Amino acid sequence: MNYSIIRYILCRILEFAALFMTLPCLVGIIYGERAVFSFLAVMAGCLTVSLIGRRHKPTSNVFYAKEGFVTVSLSWILLSLVGALPFYLSGEFPTYTDALYETVSGLTTTGSTILTDVEGLSRSIQFWRCFTHWIGGMGVLVFILAILPLSGSYNMHLMRAESPGPSVGKLVPRVKNTAMILYGIYILITALQVISLLIAGMGLYEALTLTFSTVGTGGFGLLNTSIGSYPTAVQTIFTVFMLLCGVNFQMYFLLLIRKPKDVLRCEELRYYLGIVFLAAALIAFDVRGLFANGFQAFHHALFQVASVMTTTGFCTLDYNVWPEFSKTVLFLLTLLGACAGSTGGGFKVSRLIILWRSIKTEISLAIHPRSIKKIHMEGHIVEEGTLRSVQIYAVIYVMVFLASLLLLALDEYDFVTNITAVAANFNNVGPGLELVGPAGNYSFFSPFSKYVLMFDMLAGRLELLPVLVLFSSKTWRR
Amino acid sequence: MNYSIIRYILCRILEFAALFMTLPCLVGIIYGERAVFSFLAVMAGCLTVSLIGRRHKPTSNVFYAKEGFVTVSLSWILLSLVGALPFYLSGEFPTYTDALYETVSGLTTTGSTILTDVEGLSRSIQFWRCFTHWIGGMGVLVFILAILPLSGSYNMHLMRAESPGPSVGKLVPRVKNTAMILYGIYILITALQVISLLIAGMGLYEALTLTFSTVGTGGFGLLNTSIGSYPTAVQTIFTVFMLLCGVNFQMYFLLLIRKPKDVLRCEELRYYLGIVFLAAALIAFDVRGLFANGFQAFHHALFQVASVMTTTGFCTLDYNVWPEFSKTVLFLLTLLGACAGSTGGGFKVSRLIILWRSIKTEISLAIHPRSIKKIHMEGHIVEEGTLRSVQIYAVIYVMVFLASLLLLALDEYDFVTNITAVAANFNNVGPGLELVGPAGNYSFFSPFSKYVLMFDMLAGRLELLPVLVLFSSKTWRR
Repeated sequence: MNYSIIRYILCRILEFAALFMTLPCLVGIIYGERAVFSFLAVMAGCLTVSLIGRRHKPTSNVFYAKEGFVTVSLSWILLSLVGALPFYLSGEFPTYTDALYETVSGLTTTGSTILTDVEGLSRSIQFWRCFTHWIGGMGVLVFILAILPLSGSYNMHLMRAESPGPSVGKLVPRVKNTAMILYGIYILITALQVISLLIAGMGLYEALTLTFSTVGTGGFGLLNTSIGSYPTAVQTIFTVFMLLCGVNFQMYFLLLIRKPKDVLRCEELRYYLGIVFLAAALIAFDVRGLFANGFQAFHHALFQVASVMTTTGFCTLDYNVWPEFSKTVLFLLTLLGACAGSTGGGFKVSRLIILWRSIKTEISLAIHPRSIKKIHMEGHIVEEGTLRSVQIYAVIYVMVFLASLLLLALDEYDFVTNITAVAANFNNVGPGLELVGPAGNYSFFSPFSKYVLMFDMLAGRLELLPVLVLFSSKTWRR
Repeated sequence: MNYSIIRYILCRILEFAALFMTLPCLVGIIYGERAVFSFLAVMAGCLTVSLIGRRHKPTSNVFYAKEGFVTVSLSWILLSLVGALPFYLSGEFPTYTDALYETVSGLTTTGSTILTDVEGLSRSIQFWRCFTHWIGGMGVLVFILAILPLSGSYNMHLMRAESPGPSVGKLVPRVKNTAMILYGIYILITALQVISLLIAGMGLYEALTLTFSTVGTGGFGLLNTSIGSYPTAVQTIFTVFMLLCGVNFQMYFLLLIRKPKDVLRCEELRYYLGIVFLAAALIAFDVRGLFANGFQAFHHALFQVASVMTTTGFCTLDYNVWPEFSKTVLFLLTLLGACAGSTGGGFKVSRLIILWRSIKTEISLAIHPRSIKKIHMEGHIVEEGTLRSVQIYAVIYVMVFLASLLLLALDEYDFVTNITAVAANFNNVGPGLELVGPAGNYSFFSPFSKYVLMFDMLAGRLELLPVLVLFSSKTWRR
């Protein structure tokens, strides 16, 4: 294990944490809030530690997949630990565990909260809370890759370990340029949503923070009613941008280089949109009796479906009171998640497609044992290695899920609360059902359960292996 | 597809159905019950149809894996359709769908019932109900293989398609002899339990029927309280025999040929017993406050754990009122199931072990991408094909599970009822929680949901592929 390079990157993470905090700090100065001092203290601490830690240059450039996984996991854990400090120091969060939970939830773009009253927070703290979504949405390592003059073999290992989906598509040959393009698109979408919300009459502060929560597919809001108090037109803007951010960003790159036909040919995109609109139609039909007209029913059904499927977690109403069928559809979408290469979390549509085709191939093999069948995806043959890793991903996913369910049961809350809490955190959605439904929050869980859920959020966002590698003795063996 | 040989075997199934029904018929005659006529009518019908169907000899001996799957699935469906007729004709079941549900539940050794009052049934019907567990426990095709002079390649295909577990172990070179040994052991265990219960003071009728339900790991009882009304000593006899029937029958064969060391070396057995006693200890600790002393708590915890883990589904009390942690443990055991090659259903301990080792290998591979690691089980290397099929089995399992959950939600009952109903039927356990808990039953579900659950029971008992093959167009293509 090359500890020196890991230490170097972690120091860089601290510097970026300080850099990111300048924004909420600025907000605090504008509104004259005491929380400014918390931010300044943490920023000073980060820079000091980084200065000390970076005195010795890395002694070796050796950097393999192992180092990639460990660096990414530790970076996210460090950023969470540091990012929670302003929350805690400001006194607006009861305990450090709660502040940490909120930060992990923010960075992993989960959006589950331990707060009972979001509106009581100061503006700079609210801003930081939403901004963590934006930082975590595209990935902090991808950000570093985009702007630091890092070179060598580790670029790809870091990118691979942090990017969501069964395989990592480099848009252009150089990792650095790929990262820059991804962030360029990300900033463009952010700008578009802010402008849309401003045109719809929203103030700049509100538009900025809620946009961070949307494009990171996070879900932290400013009001206790989430997005429920805004007019229908504004809610529709959110629906559109949530759906846009659940799409593989490669699609936008293809549009930019004028290859729209390749976008239309994308299988994952078609399944994604197909599932969204099918689910919205089914739910709209199921809940039609609860609304004044079919349009309202479809509007709210589509908003909730888009929110859950893209793993954002905004809501316009308390769907915990919806009929069981609608809730079950939302539960299944919670498990599924968005497209690979998007800012959304979850299992990913492309994995579902690959698994579905694996099943069909397995049945064919049972019927004709000697036939040879290859699985195709997006016009290419899916390699054996990818196939195996997707299948094992599903298996690990289920095991981590069930283990978390068991550990949460120690708190003795009801089964639906527990299973949807695990589903919503593991898939970085946010709200579940019953006690953790849209009208609830996660404050009542024991600290132990909160740490279980934090593990789930990180494991979900980093897609299991980087986090699990930390727990293997092989990683730390010389 | 070789239709002629499939027709031949299905006719044989009808004859065996008639043969099996002689026993409940005899019970009906002894107790002078009207239901005798229902049995006689069905038996006459079966024999007539078989006589007509078997007039033409099979034209071809071609028999591949495909034919094996289709024959096994159709045999089980046919036996269910025919086995339900006495229930329906006796007038003791409200509809044919309900009678069919009960028969599928019996043959697949699930033990979930649509009856609200089990005690109201006539004795011959109760006997048939429990006897279906015994028929289905070891498998009806295995029975046919054991006593019919079938020869040729299809023996192994039939055995493979019906036997539970990731790989089929022939005990001796000839399939026919393997089947005979398995049924010999099965009858021996049955006799042992009947004798134990008789010694404990139970009447012959009660001892016989409840033994059928136990050794088939079924779970149909004679009383509305299941096993709750019997004394502790009798309950312990059930605990022991449930656990014995959850063990791979190969172990008993090894004992018979005096290789006890091989039994002790069996990894699946050790994990199986380890999980049973760990789960019982955890639950006993969790529910200690509900009982007079620690012994009572452990007694009931162990009974319930043995019942759920072996997928029997007996109960001594309504564990729906137990604390959430205990219920979650039981839910997870419902998903897991017993050993491969036992009469128990579920996912099987050996599959869990293989998956667990796959995960460890995947993490190793992530750390050292170029290393080559083989997975071992019971002292042998697990072949790539077995590994892949176990992984895909898990994937199909989850998908069928979630699809069933969605379809059941159409009835708009609560989530816990739905998810535990699917788990309990798919894994052939029987009782779930809430409405389908130990004190409940499945009568309230719509006919559509009952058919979904019947599909789950059959898919679970036959381990997915044989049933799924029926739905593939490739199977029926010329």
